[in-house]
Amino acid sequence: MPAYHYVHDVMLRDCEPSGIVFLPRYFEMVHTVIENWLDEALDWPMSQIQGSDGLSLPFVNISAEFPSPSRLGDRLTWRLSVRELRRSSIWLELTGTTGADTRVSITGTLVLSEAAALRTRRWPDAIAERVKDYLVAPSATVEKVAE
Amino acid sequence: MPAYHYVHDVMLRDCEPSGIVFLPRYFEMVHTVIENWLDEALDWPMSQIQGSDGLSLPFVNISAEFPSPSRLGDRLTWRLSVRELRRSSIWLELTGTTGADTRVSITGTLVLSEAAALRTRRWPDAIAERVKDYLVAPSATVEKVAE
Amino acid sequence: MPAYHYVHDVMLRDCEPSGIVFLPRYFEMVHTVIENWLDEALDWPMSQIQGSDGLSLPFVNISAEFPSPSRLGDRLTWRLSVRELRRSSIWLELTGTTGADTRVSITGTLVLSEAAALRTRRWPDAIAERVKDYLVAPSATVEKVAE
Amino acid sequence: MPAYHYVHDVMLRDCEPSGIVFLPRYFEMVHTVIENWLDEALDWPMSQIQGSDGLSLPFVNISAEFPSPSRLGDRLTWRLSVRELRRSSIWLELTGTTGADTRVSITGTLVLSEAAALRTRRWPDAIAERVKDYLVAPSATVEKVAE
Repeated sequence: MPAYHYVHDVMLRDCEPSGIVFLPRYFEMVHTVIENWLDEALDWPMSQIQGSDGLSLPFVNISAEFPSPSRLGDRLTWRLSVRELRRSSIWLELTGTTGADTRVSITGTLVLSEAAALRTRRWPDAIAERVKDYLVAPSATVEKVAE
Repeated sequence: MPAYHYVHDVMLRDCEPSGIVFLPRYFEMVHTVIENWLDEALDWPMSQIQGSDGLSLPFVNISAEFPSPSRLGDRLTWRLSVRELRRSSIWLELTGTTGADTRVSITGTLVLSEAAALRTRRWPDAIAERVKDYLVAPSATVEKVAE
Repeated sequence: MPAYHYVHDVMLRDCEPSGIVFLPRYFEMVHTVIENWLDEALDWPMSQIQGSDGLSLPFVNISAEFPSPSRLGDRLTWRLSVRELRRSSIWLELTGTTGADTRVSITGTLVLSEAAALRTRRWPDAIAERVKDYLVAPSATVEKVAE
Repeated sequence: MPAYHYVHDVMLRDCEPSGIVFLPRYFEMVHTVIENWLDEALDWPMSQIQGSDGLSLPFVNISAEFPSPSRLGDRLTWRLSVRELRRSSIWLELTGTTGADTRVSITGTLVLSEAAALRTRRWPDAIAERVKDYLVAPSATVEKVAE
């Protein structure tokens, strides 16, 4: 499966007193992975999206499972893939693993919006092309983008 | 529906540069609502759960929808109810609204665990009794607890 | 000494695995105290400052001491006073205590700025009047504002 | 001056609605720089300090200046040096710059403590040796450690 990789070592800021990662911090990592993917893989940094492009890319839904906890010092390897590229949204899949152990498994939808009004916006063609490299099943979704 | 209420005013720490609440901050609010519910409604503060009781109460799954964005200064009214009380876990439902506008709708499962080993633990009877006041459909789940 | 009070109970989100409050979280509390003071005591909510007023109020310096640690469940009582009101900045003093125990003692300077350019701005007269109620030594600084 | 370097790109999680870095997030970066220095330069990861070593390393004071603001997408280069190595504490200096522009300048003291009691502890000799490589003026402080 085509995937973008990002490594994060669990730090003090990620953990709560019982010693495991605090739920909201997983979602900060998710955002960090996505922002790095946008920048490095799509050449579309968030500073441009929200800056000169006047857009934003908020989540409209997200769903997560945590099969086993992560602890201070664990090295989490994140993998990001695209489940579906739609006209103005994107359905992502992310997993965080330590060795063979899956710690977190997430799917969620981001919607491309005009920052001022939060009205949806069609993907720029050049971005849509680059996203296809990360599609879990590319053929199934190319048509949707072309709609 | 029986529900615990908690009011949160959206502050700078909750928002990102496009002006809307940053996804991970919703989950911090969720945790704050739950910790206040445990303390005020169940008389079982997290400092006791993780302290003298030697337990922890991590999420094993969570699912959220964000029908419309929240902004700096918005007053979010959170409502927490219990969908199901199981032997050693609890299935919660939380919504955050501003006026008639639903901003976030969440369901998630917390598992009662021994802090050291993260092995599951049966609910203390006294706590299970108090939880029942917040059940969406109490009759359906009392038996499960009694198993 | 005239002071604005704000009570915060230490929650999971504030603490790191050794069980004490994580340094950056004290500064989140500081910001929360200041934003509540602006709203409740000065009737000048941050949503107005950054919204219709087109201003921002960032720190240019801050200094903190932590005589003893805070833990999960501790009730921190914050007190905010004004050390000096200057033409376009304000020098604040904040302390956080649990019972007779001082946990954190902070001084810092906020500068009123035009949001776009981060150029300094003179305090609105009505706001300056209200700030004076929180001055540690009011007589000494009234003149500075009147400059 | 001997210094440890760490690069951080400013992300959504670091910024507030006016577009600049939110004060508490600078202190999260500071902690991240220190934890990486402990791990990479001193070979003493926080997971060992708080784990098998049963210690903690909290701040007892910190002081910061922010000469100019940082924004989404800015690349901050952090530099960490040691101002003084004392029997059971360490006085650090950190700066964050973007190009020739200093964004944040910080000094602070960390105290080595027994995690349970927060009693101070003498530095392990091997760690003290490695710290000396980062001293701003090594000769002045070697004696203090040897006390």
